[in-house]
Amino acid sequence: MILTVTLNAALDITYRLPRLHTHTTNRVTEVTERPGGKGLNVARVLAALGHRTIATGFAGGGTGEALRALLTQESDVTDALVPVGGATRRTIAVVDETTGDTTQLNEPGPMVSPAEWDAFLGTYRELLGEARAVALCGSLPPGVPVDVYARLTRAARAAGVPVLLDTSGEPLRRGLAARPDLAKPNAEELAALTGSTEPLRAARDARRRGAHTVAASLGAKGILAVTADGVWQAAPPRPIAGNPTGAGDSAVAGLLSGLVENLPWPDRLIRAVALSAATVRAAAAGEFDPGTYEELLPRVVVTDHPTAA
Amino acid sequence: MILTVTLNAALDITYRLPRLHTHTTNRVTEVTERPGGKGLNVARVLAALGHRTIATGFAGGGTGEALRALLTQESDVTDALVPVGGATRRTIAVVDETTGDTTQLNEPGPMVSPAEWDAFLGTYRELLGEARAVALCGSLPPGVPVDVYARLTRAARAAGVPVLLDTSGEPLRRGLAARPDLAKPNAEELAALTGSTEPLRAARDARRRGAHTVAASLGAKGILAVTADGVWQAAPPRPIAGNPTGAGDSAVAGLLSGLVENLPWPDRLIRAVALSAATVRAAAAGEFDPGTYEELLPRVVVTDHPTAA
Repeated sequence: MILTVTLNAALDITYRLPRLHTHTTNRVTEVTERPGGKGLNVARVLAALGHRTIATGFAGGGTGEALRALLTQESDVTDALVPVGGATRRTIAVVDETTGDTTQLNEPGPMVSPAEWDAFLGTYRELLGEARAVALCGSLPPGVPVDVYARLTRAARAAGVPVLLDTSGEPLRRGLAARPDLAKPNAEELAALTGSTEPLRAARDARRRGAHTVAASLGAKGILAVTADGVWQAAPPRPIAGNPTGAGDSAVAGLLSGLVENLPWPDRLIRAVALSAATVRAAAAGEFDPGTYEELLPRVVVTDHPTAA
Repeated sequence: MILTVTLNAALDITYRLPRLHTHTTNRVTEVTERPGGKGLNVARVLAALGHRTIATGFAGGGTGEALRALLTQESDVTDALVPVGGATRRTIAVVDETTGDTTQLNEPGPMVSPAEWDAFLGTYRELLGEARAVALCGSLPPGVPVDVYARLTRAARAAGVPVLLDTSGEPLRRGLAARPDLAKPNAEELAALTGSTEPLRAARDARRRGAHTVAASLGAKGILAVTADGVWQAAPPRPIAGNPTGAGDSAVAGLLSGLVENLPWPDRLIRAVALSAATVRAAAAGEFDPGTYEELLPRVVVTDHPTAA
């Protein structure tokens, strides 16, 4: 079983309207809702790849109930979200159909009490007992200690479970110090962490900060992995047009499934890049276009980096 | 008992953030939720004035549950909303704290099935049996016939219950033909109905279309009433700064309570204008500032209009 952790899960709402006008009233023409939050997106892709997947984290309020219902209806992910008194946050994507642009409104998330945090830790430790890998994903809700990913990483390592960390800012910085097996920052997160906009230099810096391996997602340029055994970069064979939301989460699912299946690094990267590109071609985060995925798998280009790690 | 009908109730959500940036991601700093929809605002103000008030209409889904919980917690309004399979709509007000401007996003509302519509009609007819007046308020959800307010007006008249109609567009046009006792359009709705931007002319036109009395809310200029007995205009003694959302709903509550209490028309208008102004000074629609209300009651200026109706 693969475990994913989403401490700040979200009910993702998409509003479509012909044109967004600010400072006045807009009638939304189409409303869609999905279970959201990076760890839940990762879980849905893992389940679609055939891996038994359990999702934990927090869910509460009417929005939490809606999220759990959608998760169960729309995927084979097992719901082990821990109840919380506050309401799961909403994230609202307002799509202007004239320009194609999206304006995103993200609520902060529920305040998590110390007792709720303790309940989560109990669930997490129990689930680690049967996990083959764990993904720690996304931002933190208010009330959760900022070093939470360091604590969860140490607990997983103590249980012998490999850890993938996908977050940003201070939670990433602190989490790296606990030596996760794999960190997957994107170029922006990597630059914010290290101060360097040169991906190879920044990824090496991130490794020195504690991650055993760093796989940096670089958008259209694919994924750069700096590992103990070497440096590889994998990229799609052509530019992929579409909606990049969730592409990074699908990359995480690709990397994590490759880890569990013990694939060589180049094969993990090929899978991650193909899944990522197939997500750009899908309607929503947490989904991917199977045709694009199958088509790209044999065509992703992997480069053995000239300078070793 | 006073009955209010809200066919397209809403969970009103307010997002505050330092500055709204379109086409990118915004972190909302404060989230508040309220029961919304014009008829529910009217009901809350009536209940705060001490009138026994029942609210009916439709509510469904997680948003409907949240709305009902808030309505019961925050007011003495009796909830007689009829369950519907679809989810109650959300309306989202995004307040830019730098400019003070609000960008509003309104969902369309749940599709109402013929069976649900029948269930509502049964509830409505039953409640009319004990109602001293009924307010029919707001927009229509998908699936409800456009002549609904005409039907509900006829049913109320057949039961001997006075009807106040507060809507716009085609539902207003059709509703007027069923001869409600009172219509309360604002200046914009009146102009859209009649083609005239001159309020007295437009209000007389609206009367000819069927309303026994027309009370037009004219923002800072107060309320103009064209009745069978005369024409009056009431206005606040000074400009009132604040948030005008819900001011029209409070005017409806003032007019309706005055009708039930058999107040002379000038006194009804004084109450409606004072409540309306006190709502501009309150934080949210459906609420009013009691201090402002008490202070303004003796100071609202009523003008007996020179030209009779």
